[in-house]
Amino acid sequence: NQPLTLIAGPCQLESADHAQMIAGTLAEICQRTGAQFIFKGSYDKANRTSLSGTRGLGMEAGLKILEGVRAAFGCPVLTDIHEREQCAEVASVVDVLQIPAFLCRQTDLLIAAGETGAAINIKKGQFLAPWDMANVASKVASTGNNRIMLTERGVSFGYNTLVTDMRSLPTMARTGYPVVMDATHSVQQPGGQGNSSGGQREFAPVMARTAVSLGIAAVFIETHQDPDNAPSDGPNMIYLDQMDRLMTSLMAFDALAKADPLRP
Amino acid sequence: NQPLTLIAGPCQLESADHAQMIAGTLAEICQRTGAQFIFKGSYDKANRTSLSGTRGLGMEAGLKILEGVRAAFGCPVLTDIHEREQCAEVASVVDVLQIPAFLCRQTDLLIAAGETGAAINIKKGQFLAPWDMANVASKVASTGNNRIMLTERGVSFGYNTLVTDMRSLPTMARTGYPVVMDATHSVQQPGGQGNSSGGQREFAPVMARTAVSLGIAAVFIETHQDPDNAPSDGPNMIYLDQMDRLMTSLMAFDALAKADPLRP
Amino acid sequence: NQPLTLIAGPCQLESADHAQMIAGTLAEICQRTGAQFIFKGSYDKANRTSLSGTRGLGMEAGLKILEGVRAAFGCPVLTDIHEREQCAEVASVVDVLQIPAFLCRQTDLLIAAGETGAAINIKKGQFLAPWDMANVASKVASTGNNRIMLTERGVSFGYNTLVTDMRSLPTMARTGYPVVMDATHSVQQPGGQGNSSGGQREFAPVMARTAVSLGIAAVFIETHQDPDNAPSDGPNMIYLDQMDRLMTSLMAFDALAKADPLRP
Amino acid sequence: NQPLTLIAGPCQLESADHAQMIAGTLAEICQRTGAQFIFKGSYDKANRTSLSGTRGLGMEAGLKILEGVRAAFGCPVLTDIHEREQCAEVASVVDVLQIPAFLCRQTDLLIAAGETGAAINIKKGQFLAPWDMANVASKVASTGNNRIMLTERGVSFGYNTLVTDMRSLPTMARTGYPVVMDATHSVQQPGGQGNSSGGQREFAPVMARTAVSLGIAAVFIETHQDPDNAPSDGPNMIYLDQMDRLMTSLMAFDALAKADPLRP
Repeated sequence: NQPLTLIAGPCQLESADHAQMIAGTLAEICQRTGAQFIFKGSYDKANRTSLSGTRGLGMEAGLKILEGVRAAFGCPVLTDIHEREQCAEVASVVDVLQIPAFLCRQTDLLIAAGETGAAINIKKGQFLAPWDMANVASKVASTGNNRIMLTERGVSFGYNTLVTDMRSLPTMARTGYPVVMDATHSVQQPGGQGNSSGGQREFAPVMARTAVSLGIAAVFIETHQDPDNAPSDGPNMIYLDQMDRLMTSLMAFDALAKADPLRP
Repeated sequence: NQPLTLIAGPCQLESADHAQMIAGTLAEICQRTGAQFIFKGSYDKANRTSLSGTRGLGMEAGLKILEGVRAAFGCPVLTDIHEREQCAEVASVVDVLQIPAFLCRQTDLLIAAGETGAAINIKKGQFLAPWDMANVASKVASTGNNRIMLTERGVSFGYNTLVTDMRSLPTMARTGYPVVMDATHSVQQPGGQGNSSGGQREFAPVMARTAVSLGIAAVFIETHQDPDNAPSDGPNMIYLDQMDRLMTSLMAFDALAKADPLRP
Repeated sequence: NQPLTLIAGPCQLESADHAQMIAGTLAEICQRTGAQFIFKGSYDKANRTSLSGTRGLGMEAGLKILEGVRAAFGCPVLTDIHEREQCAEVASVVDVLQIPAFLCRQTDLLIAAGETGAAINIKKGQFLAPWDMANVASKVASTGNNRIMLTERGVSFGYNTLVTDMRSLPTMARTGYPVVMDATHSVQQPGGQGNSSGGQREFAPVMARTAVSLGIAAVFIETHQDPDNAPSDGPNMIYLDQMDRLMTSLMAFDALAKADPLRP
Repeated sequence: NQPLTLIAGPCQLESADHAQMIAGTLAEICQRTGAQFIFKGSYDKANRTSLSGTRGLGMEAGLKILEGVRAAFGCPVLTDIHEREQCAEVASVVDVLQIPAFLCRQTDLLIAAGETGAAINIKKGQFLAPWDMANVASKVASTGNNRIMLTERGVSFGYNTLVTDMRSLPTMARTGYPVVMDATHSVQQPGGQGNSSGGQREFAPVMARTAVSLGIAAVFIETHQDPDNAPSDGPNMIYLDQMDRLMTSLMAFDALAKADPLRP
């Protein structure tokens, strides 16, 4: 029953300066609004729609940037991993390892991640029912690591479209693990622009607010000072200069939701 | 930017006493919590899953009951109509005519309803995109009647299942008409019990709260003192004795949402 | 285990000459290929996407045209009805009354249609599971009329899109009633052009052939000599001058399928 | 325009004897019916629904079995790989590397597979539109390897359910690569039995026949002498003793389809 956590940052890590700028802005917003803060950034986009999409800076450069963010702002940092070999090295720097949605059933990756002892944020596959995340979490928990978070990021709804079923949040909460709403990937339009994914940035606050009103643990938001020129996920990222207003609003809904929990 | 309206009542009108009991309870709750109240009750269930389902009391008896409720509690009353011939007679008693979801594209019914001058609540078809409701509303508006409400009640998601897309609420709001969330039909499982529909009553408060957090005009809820023995829609109706707690909670979210409107 | 029936004609009846031209062309094709033939034409499009869509010639003019087609070519004729009051009059002329998909759960319409004694073709709602058509058919059968056909025309799949689940054909066949594949409406994109529906005409032969390979009773196809200028459903109607080649092909698959029935 | 290829075998490799028994039965059926044959078997099920599911014999033992099958029957062999490190070693034995559906957007895996020069069969993700497979195939083709096959295995349709859109087969064929229908995974019910997936074995022949009627290159079928006691995918595997009748039937549809190609 803690205040809302914001997991946020750019889709891709771009440079140390860029990460520091975004992390600094978000850390300040969270301090002012009373939110907890975890900085998020990816060093590799391993499953772009097409080969022409920018991949990222790579693990070594990325981890250095994440380490710098943690040192500068004292916040935990999160990144996503794609192969089991990466888990140990990434976990030596990062506080939260994230399992991408497409990979949420890859047993070896889940176990390798769990064995690091880091917190593990598992994104629910676009092809998975919320109740099936209990089996997914059990794979990680089998390592003795129960520091698990489960993230909703939308489910397949016809072609090139996702829908978010709000029932998934209380359903996943039955596992006892903290539940996260990914407010920006849930408004993605996968493959919707031919060689890259589209998105409906304007609806990300709708996803965030409705989920927060249910008393979830955390909201996940990708943000950028100039989304239209970001190397990936521009169409669904939120403008950095709108994060202050958004978090102020979300914290009010969070306080109300946590004072008035929905009965299970 | 008025306080939330509650449109509520039993699925089927059962008797004058039953309607008065439910309407009285709800009117009192609304008065206490500051909600506006519209009593809802059906005189005919014209599209039951199977022939064995109870149809209802019929138009004459139903209208008399609705008239009695309005007289007793001073609240507007709403009922659904299924054929254009019914519109004028029903509108002579009832404040709001409701177009069932399956019938939301039947041009003649929409026009006949609009021509009565009554307020018209159109349920969005389970097969319809939210942006397509603009065309539906235009059919009513072509009669010169702009007293239109648009209701979300879930969209087909695989077989025997509905999902509610929260984006549909702001999307329909772009028409300028008040938007309603039907919190109990949206958790229906159509045909899910073979000869009747199932439902997930436990998630109706999830649908209501998330929708209200977006600042909608009204929430639609079917309620019964003993849903498991109600003649229809039992699996998704909310217990009458839980309505007080639910409305108290929803009004707090409504106040917060209306003080902090989402930008379009 | 009869040869395939073709139910075909223009979406809307346009004039007596037009209907005769199309019916004549199709009757000849069916005679040559060994298919049975039912002429289809609508006198009223009662649920257009928007008010600006052309409605049709009306019942009186439409029935006269259908009567003329039957007299000229000796083929049964089919049309769709939308209100129970229409059933008796339409059935006095027409051999097959068709229940539109949106209306497939309207009990009174199904019963009024059944009571005429005409054959009844029920289109499966875009919101309905195939196994739920047993309940729908029972409403008609309750009148003592068992001359029922069940038609697949696609199921909602995200927004503005339908998908056809081939499992629905053997599933509906378990009722014992003849099963029909609607090869042109199943490739509709409902509301997909803003004020009207889009369609993928190029895939209609895919729907027809795959369904016929399962040994179904009939295929339903809307066709026009100039679909792009037809008053409705142009984007999914097949060019009349392609029907000969298509039926020749389908009859070969029909013969193979009926010689080698799938085990239930 | 070659005769149909059958890609078939058990879900999991169980032992050398078991593989030889199944491969021998299938090779004989294919010889008799004129089909081409590729033996399929998995050495590791890397994404079971739950941890309690059997994983398999492992790479070393599996490759030995596959090598033995090829030696005994002269047929190409196929297996699926899950990590890029596996590609080279597996390709030293196996003719066709298969990319699992969940992994179909993992760029590094696709490229590592492509670089082996082996044929690559890519299963379309349950979350992917058919037209998005062009981008997926391009990742492999970027290695200079154009020996690519694209497989339909169903798309997410609500929870725990897949649907097969027959339009996906001609859509994927526009890439110019051979298209495969996976007739047994497309009738899976993912997660449908709580700790494992359910399936509708009875509909696998429906999927196979309808797809073959469109003139596809290959059909993929998992088969077992005793599916109910198989270590995985039992509910959707076809009984081995029904394969002869099924292939006889499919080859008749294949001949008809290839003599009468659908126009693109």
